[in-house]
Parts: sequence; structure tokens; C-alpha cells
Amino acid sequence: MEIEVESSKLAKALAIVSRIAVNGKATLPILSNVLIRVDTRKVSLTTTNLDMAVVDYLPVSESKDGVVTVPARLLAEFVGNLPKGAPVKILVDGTKVVTKSGKYSSTLNGSAADDFPELPEIDEVKMVKFKMGAEEFKVGINQVMMASSNDMTRPALTGVYFNTNEEALYIAATDGYRLAERKFIDEVKSEVKAIVPTSSLSEVMRSLSDEDEEIEILFDEAQVRFRFGEIEITSKLIDGSFPDYRQLIPKTSEAEITLEKAELLRVTKLAALFAREVGGSIVLESKTSTKTFSVASVANEYGENTSEIEADITKDERMTLNSRFLIDALNAIDEDKVTLGFSGKLNPILVKNEKSNSYTHIIMPLKS
Amino acid sequence: MEIEVESSKLAKALAIVSRIAVNGKATLPILSNVLIRVDTRKVSLTTTNLDMAVVDYLPVSESKDGVVTVPARLLAEFVGNLPKGAPVKILVDGTKVVTKSGKYSSTLNGSAADDFPELPEIDEVKMVKFKMGAEEFKVGINQVMMASSNDMTRPALTGVYFNTNEEALYIAATDGYRLAERKFIDEVKSEVKAIVPTSSLSEVMRSLSDEDEEIEILFDEAQVRFRFGEIEITSKLIDGSFPDYRQLIPKTSEAEITLEKAELLRVTKLAALFAREVGGSIVLESKTSTKTFSVASVANEYGENTSEIEADITKDERMTLNSRFLIDALNAIDEDKVTLGFSGKLNPILVKNEKSNSYTHIIMPLKS
Repeated sequence: MEIEVESSKLAKALAIVSRIAVNGKATLPILSNVLIRVDTRKVSLTTTNLDMAVVDYLPVSESKDGVVTVPARLLAEFVGNLPKGAPVKILVDGTKVVTKSGKYSSTLNGSAADDFPELPEIDEVKMVKFKMGAEEFKVGINQVMMASSNDMTRPALTGVYFNTNEEALYIAATDGYRLAERKFIDEVKSEVKAIVPTSSLSEVMRSLSDEDEEIEILFDEAQVRFRFGEIEITSKLIDGSFPDYRQLIPKTSEAEITLEKAELLRVTKLAALFAREVGGSIVLESKTSTKTFSVASVANEYGENTSEIEADITKDERMTLNSRFLIDALNAIDEDKVTLGFSGKLNPILVKNEKSNSYTHIIMPLKS
Repeated sequence: MEIEVESSKLAKALAIVSRIAVNGKATLPILSNVLIRVDTRKVSLTTTNLDMAVVDYLPVSESKDGVVTVPARLLAEFVGNLPKGAPVKILVDGTKVVTKSGKYSSTLNGSAADDFPELPEIDEVKMVKFKMGAEEFKVGINQVMMASSNDMTRPALTGVYFNTNEEALYIAATDGYRLAERKFIDEVKSEVKAIVPTSSLSEVMRSLSDEDEEIEILFDEAQVRFRFGEIEITSKLIDGSFPDYRQLIPKTSEAEITLEKAELLRVTKLAALFAREVGGSIVLESKTSTKTFSVASVANEYGENTSEIEADITKDERMTLNSRFLIDALNAIDEDKVTLGFSGKLNPILVKNEKSNSYTHIIMPLKS
């Protein structure tokens, strides 16, 4: 096996695939390696952590076919430190993988490709396919994935739920305390119900570059594949059933208040400072008598804090919630104005854009 | 006590002083507070960790004299999150400290200034004074302080040694494995021998802003004071005697090699990647036969690496040293070309600028 390629192209591809490679001593040491396969001038770099695999394809100027595996991070760092723009040659000498660029040279102990875990077979023809703008994808995933759970005892909640409903594709996530839903693609013909691990989505998000314009998303029964630029990320789906979340979203609210998002975000952050000592708990209150919406918090030992915003208040409301959840929700709002929907202190608060209905976020109140 | 001041000026001053305030539960809780003293339109903000004190003076538009202490970080974060440019009012109501800016308001539990530790009395008239450009100060300290030790059992090595010699002020630091020395100020009249804690110098470095043009350094027997802009940082000196380091610096070397700094830095970084598994150990070798200078490392398990630089070699040399120390030394070199001085594999290697003699760095070799 032999390839010759410009250093910064190789460095970029290695940086992406080496992130998935297991760092340090793995139970299966070969998982810290990258599989380099050369097949008629086309090179593929592959890493996997068994739940997920990343392949980056790389056009090369010169090559001899072959396949080898080699420690991913060390190779990535070595190539990343070479002068940009110089040609790099990788060649295999027995089990040694020699990387040369001018007067810089390294020899890495490779291992045979036979030991590299088989990647799951996927028949793309049978897969359900979606395609969308990469920018739209990033925005949407960012609006939803923070609401997913880290609690491994409830695996279905550790992913983002891709689901079709009335000819649209939606994504949703919940950790039981808050829920975010976004209409993702309009007018879809196919149907899907699939929970994609949030960890895999994070990897897709990190690997997307500004040059990527489109992303393809393909599902079969057990796997999802994301394809963009020269990169293909394939992940297992989470086996489990996602809660029937639509019934949790209130259809109407008893009272609605529309506020400047930036203003509400600022007062929530101020309140969050004082709320650290009390688990993030802040109090939202709207008063018809003074036409003010206030956000307050009390840090018993250190002091307290209140900020008021003038607003068109139609009903007295008072509820306690976690400041971090409100900050996350406000950061996900697309528009300059946000509408909060209240339905009493025991029911979830609804956070949405003033105009568009494409994004919905609900937060469960805390006991107060 | 009462002050009114523009929010971003107050935020900047609080950010600087609150870094020194002890975070979390201190044995002496008042050490997490900032002392706010108002005296005829001049406000001083003071924090101390007992080893060091920072005072920032702040001109204010309106004020009533008085003094109070209040949790430093919480106040700093609260003011830091207020809209920039708005006036902020701080006033004392009993033991409560109320901070208001438009519709934003917080109440912090203050405590009486009587409990705040007395700052050491300093008689500036009796102090030895130096003055220099702030930029020069930053460059010099950065070239030296990385060589100081973290080992608290040898306190004299945990500081930077300010010492005068032949009418110049020098700074030096060593951790026993390497030593850095910089000529700091020429033609000084006064004499000083003082070890300034590296932690205090770090705080001075962090607090210097690009707007500061000059810095004053004042010493008495037990303390040092740095003054720049509106800030005054006073620190205890380290009580102990610094090694007689000048005798450790070789007067001549058996062989000298001059190389491009950027090139040597690159090959050292490449070698450092492979040297992680072996405690950073890399091998430098110069060969008269091939006129090459090489840097190599071996990571037993993963592989090995060698880079060669063509150079004017006058003597065969081979030595092993810690890659991190060489990287630190090269980063401190001012010029584009660096000169390495070798005197056999058991003696320290000398790293200096090709032309200027103002900076000297020596590194002890590792056994090989």
C-alpha cells in the first residue's frame, strides 16, 4: 500500500476520523487505529467505536492498492504538525507504516486489517432517504439535542427522535424535565420512526464544515447514515420506544406573554448567578397590577436578585423553574421575540417563537 | 456608602480583583469578599488571599464616603452581565449591599469592613524602585517564569529571582532541571535580591492590559509592589536564598550549532508526540559525517520518529533531553535563529539567541 497526498488534506481527514477512534488503552486495542484502504486512486480512512463508524474519502495523486491499520491519533497529530502544502507519502513496510514528508519521517507499528471490526452491511437501496441543507440541519439539531438525556438507564431518552407526521419530518428530544421539537423537513413522502444517539449526532455536527452545503440522511431498521462532503458517518439506532410526546405539548395556554428574547435571556442569566446555591431554581412572576414580568432568585447565604420587564400581562402567574433549562430554550429561539405560554404553576411552560410554529419547547416547573 | 459608575468600568475592575478573592468556602470566609472603600469621589476595590493583595482604583461620577465588603465573584458576575454603558449604583442598606442598574437589581449580604484582613503597611519612600515598559516586562517574565518550580518543599525555587549584578537588573528561575535568565533593566543604580512568587507574577501578567504602557516595581525587605494603570498588586516575597545560579551557566561550549528556530521547534514537537510514552525523552544528535542535526524519539509500542536538519556541524554530539523543556526554551527565544551549545552528554545544553546575549536558558540532559 502506498499513497501520496498533500499534507493539509490528509491532516483534515485524519483529524475528523481520529476523534472517533478510542483514545488510550481500549479492551479492543485496534479500535484506536484508523483503517487506511487504497483502491484505484481512492483512499478511505475509517474508524469505529463499534456503535458508530466514520469514513472519510480522500483523492490522492499517487497510490498503490492495499490496506493497513495504524494508531489514529498519533498519525493525525504527526501529519497535523507537518508543514502545510507539502506532499506526504505513506507506505507499508511489513507491519511498519512509514510516513514521510521531506526530512520528516515517522514509523508507526501497524496491524493487519483483518483484525479491524467488520462494519455493518448496509443496503442503501432499501433505505429511507432524506436530503436537506447542511446549515438548516445544524440549526435544527442544535435546537433539539440539548433536551436529550444523559441517563443511560433510559436509553430511548438519550437520543433524538426522527419521526414523520402528516407528511413532515420532525425531530424531538426530552429528558423528562423538558422537551424540544422542531419541524425538520416539509412535504416528505417516506415514513420513519428512529431514535438517533445524541452522541452520534454530536459527531456529525463536529464533522460538518462550512463548505458542506447538503446532507443526506438514510435510515434502515437498525442504522442511520449521514453523508456530506467526502464523509460518511454510520451509527446504530437506539432500540426502544420514544414517549408519545405530542400529547405532552399543551394545545393552548391560559396566558401568553411576548417578550424581547435578548432581554429575557439577560435577566435569566442574572437570576441564574444567584440561583447556583439553590440548584438553579428561579421564580418567574407576571403581575397584572404593575404590568411587569419579573425574574427573581434567592441565594440564601449570599443575597438575592430581581429584574423586571414591562409587558402586556393578562393574568397573574407565578412559577418556579430551572434557570438552565430556560436559558437553553431561549438560546434555541429563532426570532427576536419569544412567547411564553403559562397554564398554572403545576403545568409545563411553553417557549416558542412569536410568529413561526416550527419550534416548540416545554419546561416542567419545579415545586415551589 | 454609595457610588454611581458606568457598568463596564466597574465590571472590568471587579473582574480583576475578584480573581484573587478565594472562591468557595474559605477558612476565613471574608477572603472571598471585595472591600469597597469610598473616599472623596475615589473608590478602591481590594481583595486579598493573605499572600497577595490587589487594589483597583476607580473614578466615579457620584459617591458618598464609606466602606463595606461583599462577595467578590457574585458581584463581579452580576455587574459583568449588566448592559454595557448603563450607570450602576451600589448603596449600602444596613448589612445589605444593593446594586441597581435600571430595572436590574440585586441585594448581596455584605459584612463589616472591620473583619477584612489588614493589608501590610508599606512605606513606599523607603522602597527600592524600578520602572520599565509594560510590554518589555511581559516579554521578559514570560521568558523566565516557566522555568520556576511547583515543588512547595523547595520554596525558593517557586519564584522568580530579581537580582542586580554589575548595574543591571536580572530575573532568573530554575526548577533544578532547567534554568532561565534574562537581563531585565540596564543601568540601574539600586540593588535588590528578592524572590517574587511565580503565582503573584502570574496575577500581575493577567491583570496587565494592552493600555498599560509602564509598570513600576517596588521592593522592601519582605514585599514587592507592582503598579500599573489604576492597579496595585502587593505580594509577600519568598523567604529563602536562591541558588548561586551564575556558576551553573557554562561560560563556553565544546560545540555550537545555529538553526532556524521555527524548524527546530517543529521537529521537536513532532518528536514530542512519540515521546509521550517515554516521559518526553527525545534524542538530539549532530553528525559531522552527514552535516545533519537530527531529533528522534521512540515510543516502544507505537513506533518511532526522526527528523533531520542540515547544519554546519563541527563535532559529533548526542544527548537525551525532555522535549517539553526544549519546546519551552525555544518558545522563549527572541530571534529567528537559535544557537545550541553542547558540552558533552552529561553537561547542560545551552539555548540562546544567535546574536543577543540578553537571554540564557540551560537544560540538564536526561540519562541515556
